[in-house]
Amino acid sequence: MTSKSVTIVGGGISGLKAAHVLLQSGVFTKDDIVILEAQNRLGGRIKTDRELSKLGVPYDLGAAWFHDALTNSVLYDSIENGTFVPLKDGYFDDKDIAIYAREHDGPLDTNNWKLARVLEDMEKYMELYYMEGLDVKDMSLDDFAKVYVDKYKAFLTPEQLRYCSRLLRYFELWFGIPSYEILAKYAPMDHQGRNLYDKKGHGFAVDHLVSQIDCEIRKETQVTRIQRDVKGARRHRLELADGSFVDTDYVVVTVPLSILKLQEGPQNIVWEPPLPQPVTEALDKISMGALGKVVLEFDIIWWDKTQDRFDIVPDEVSSHGQVPQSWEYPIYIINYARVFPGTASLVILTQLPVTEYLELHPAQAWQYLKPMLLKLNVSSFSVPDPINTIVTDWTKNPFARGAYSAIRTGECPDDVIIQLSGEHDGVGLGAGLTIRFAGEHTIADGGGCIHGAYDSGKRAAEWIVEHAK
Amino acid sequence: MTSKSVTIVGGGISGLKAAHVLLQSGVFTKDDIVILEAQNRLGGRIKTDRELSKLGVPYDLGAAWFHDALTNSVLYDSIENGTFVPLKDGYFDDKDIAIYAREHDGPLDTNNWKLARVLEDMEKYMELYYMEGLDVKDMSLDDFAKVYVDKYKAFLTPEQLRYCSRLLRYFELWFGIPSYEILAKYAPMDHQGRNLYDKKGHGFAVDHLVSQIDCEIRKETQVTRIQRDVKGARRHRLELADGSFVDTDYVVVTVPLSILKLQEGPQNIVWEPPLPQPVTEALDKISMGALGKVVLEFDIIWWDKTQDRFDIVPDEVSSHGQVPQSWEYPIYIINYARVFPGTASLVILTQLPVTEYLELHPAQAWQYLKPMLLKLNVSSFSVPDPINTIVTDWTKNPFARGAYSAIRTGECPDDVIIQLSGEHDGVGLGAGLTIRFAGEHTIADGGGCIHGAYDSGKRAAEWIVEHAK
Repeated sequence: MTSKSVTIVGGGISGLKAAHVLLQSGVFTKDDIVILEAQNRLGGRIKTDRELSKLGVPYDLGAAWFHDALTNSVLYDSIENGTFVPLKDGYFDDKDIAIYAREHDGPLDTNNWKLARVLEDMEKYMELYYMEGLDVKDMSLDDFAKVYVDKYKAFLTPEQLRYCSRLLRYFELWFGIPSYEILAKYAPMDHQGRNLYDKKGHGFAVDHLVSQIDCEIRKETQVTRIQRDVKGARRHRLELADGSFVDTDYVVVTVPLSILKLQEGPQNIVWEPPLPQPVTEALDKISMGALGKVVLEFDIIWWDKTQDRFDIVPDEVSSHGQVPQSWEYPIYIINYARVFPGTASLVILTQLPVTEYLELHPAQAWQYLKPMLLKLNVSSFSVPDPINTIVTDWTKNPFARGAYSAIRTGECPDDVIIQLSGEHDGVGLGAGLTIRFAGEHTIADGGGCIHGAYDSGKRAAEWIVEHAK
Repeated sequence: MTSKSVTIVGGGISGLKAAHVLLQSGVFTKDDIVILEAQNRLGGRIKTDRELSKLGVPYDLGAAWFHDALTNSVLYDSIENGTFVPLKDGYFDDKDIAIYAREHDGPLDTNNWKLARVLEDMEKYMELYYMEGLDVKDMSLDDFAKVYVDKYKAFLTPEQLRYCSRLLRYFELWFGIPSYEILAKYAPMDHQGRNLYDKKGHGFAVDHLVSQIDCEIRKETQVTRIQRDVKGARRHRLELADGSFVDTDYVVVTVPLSILKLQEGPQNIVWEPPLPQPVTEALDKISMGALGKVVLEFDIIWWDKTQDRFDIVPDEVSSHGQVPQSWEYPIYIINYARVFPGTASLVILTQLPVTEYLELHPAQAWQYLKPMLLKLNVSSFSVPDPINTIVTDWTKNPFARGAYSAIRTGECPDDVIIQLSGEHDGVGLGAGLTIRFAGEHTIADGGGCIHGAYDSGKRAAEWIVEHAK
């Protein structure tokens, strides 16, 4: 039996940031706080691998970009504390993307065909369409593309007509789910600035936070039960997988959405009393996506090393059978030869159902990707097989079960933000509302991103500091 | 003495559309309505010239693009009534712009230097900066550029640092005023879609409206005095320049902002009683810009005919003396060789103070522009002198006195919208509020554009129809 003032469940960046804020507040000492992490590593869905590469390059298998670079709190705190120098440690990989399709040799003539302009138009129309009224029909991104093309076909050239709907599917590589599942209403993104690729590996931000935290951090320590207000004392009891307990005044629950949504199984957290109905209903209206990555390392660079990134659009028609086929889904490729000049590797982003398939069958990755990647060949020789293939395992990891939250047709993220963000009065669990939530799924600004998770941890900690005073 | 139900002051697109709606309503007959236009032509700041060209091309000396093409009412009505076919009569001239600077040979390497990304970033930061709080300092676009560069210089490459502030000055060619006068807070524009260049000449929309209107239209008929509620009868009396009168139940005042702002002189309209203080105060907080155009026709095409448009950035430092110098202000160039394939002409957009200077000294236009335009030469020969030069006259036209409304530092457009739009209860003039306003300066959505003017005329007419019922 342990007794703590604050127990933080989950050692990802939101939990670590929460501990950091609590420790800096002066209201708690290091002995008052404990972080419980189920896995044998910290960082959660930030995971920088420095060992699997045969080329000596770090790969972020989870989050990799500082999105919203104008306002990203992790970026700014890292610049301020001296751990990150933007143009040395990062790379703005936002040169116009080179786009390829099966039926076309070489990159599409994007500028002359003004494909980016039409994509911008489609995104703007998504906003306008849903602003027309509250009763506008919920639909998938695929169906929305049909609505746009139908309404504006007189504005579109033959090339634009041929490619615009297929290009719009690049959203799949933001959300990690296929376009026929993406809810169009929530697809438009209001980016707060550019995307800065982190060459240093996002793990640096985790490592730095850990170096600033002197409270107890227990790895491989899974919480299996959370009893709130035990004995009416406004204290909570957490049961751990080894049968021991932690009694605590405050809890910050930062486990992934996928764990909160579990009803059973070894990773399930049993709530006593059960989660209130508004919370369970909110959790039913949001789900996990699975952005996955395949890293391919080669002996030699055979693609255009001056491009930042490549987009390969899918065929217009696909069968959607059990096993994903090449050309059925778009892929997005980060050109490491540009990010780390001279490095012969490509990092390919995938979405569901491809991510799950390739994570289960990593040996199939090259076979699946090769027909599409051949399009990028600008060398005089045949494309060689990779010397090394690294595939993520987010769908297989029972403590992650995907990458980050996504909104599918029939869903709506608003309720979960209301129930879990703690930004509204009367939410939080327990009689004193002293069980708080944090993580990428609990925040609107920066949702799905590391700075959102980080800010949510800060928010939960600040509430507790204020309450404890 | 004439007696009418509705008198429309001004025969631009807002006045014409107002008449059209009134006539279609069934509430008024053609004998109930009169349009009074001070000039000898209709259309106002829509002016398609079909005579001055030596190459047989129409030039829009005023409005030329359908902006906000996703929602532009004039565009949609024109498509619907069969007078405009988008890809035949229009051209989306939004290929990535080719940018030139004095110190650089050939176009800037915009894509590799990611200059467009930084410009997008600056515009986004403009929004974010002013969302930070209501007390954020009012500043010019030039000063804002300094704030951005100061805050984000660690993110900017040497090329981005060199060009970003100068590139941001392209806003001058939206507003028609120099960047040191543009109010940064109101500079961000939320475009509702792409810009469609009207190859047909915007005059077609004026001509079509006129063909649909069978009420009396008096040209060269200037209103000099508006007496409201004469003899307490809720009728108004308009005095004309020839000393005659029009008595009327309703008035729609569509004269330009510049005429409303006049205090004296032959174009002034005397209000009896004077305009209420909230209106005059609102008019003090918005002013006229002067987007001007210079058309240069040549014997031969000596520039890159595959580009839609060119942007020439000014030097970093300028003297701002009495007479504008080449390289002091950005210019924006429409490549007619692309819009009308094979046509050897360029249309150059200018801003104040350049517009006023060139309109007063049209013979100086080539001398002013040539040093900058030489940058575009891709031929093997020397750039020839133009065979024809056409310069607009908006600043010289006493009934226009500029192009359209603009917001300068120290100003704010909100009050004039509140006072003149008629979208709020209790505004409009006269005891029955039966004096209404329309025109590009009276509307938020589409302000400064022909679709805004058109919508404002519709709005005024619909109010009158509703009131008359």
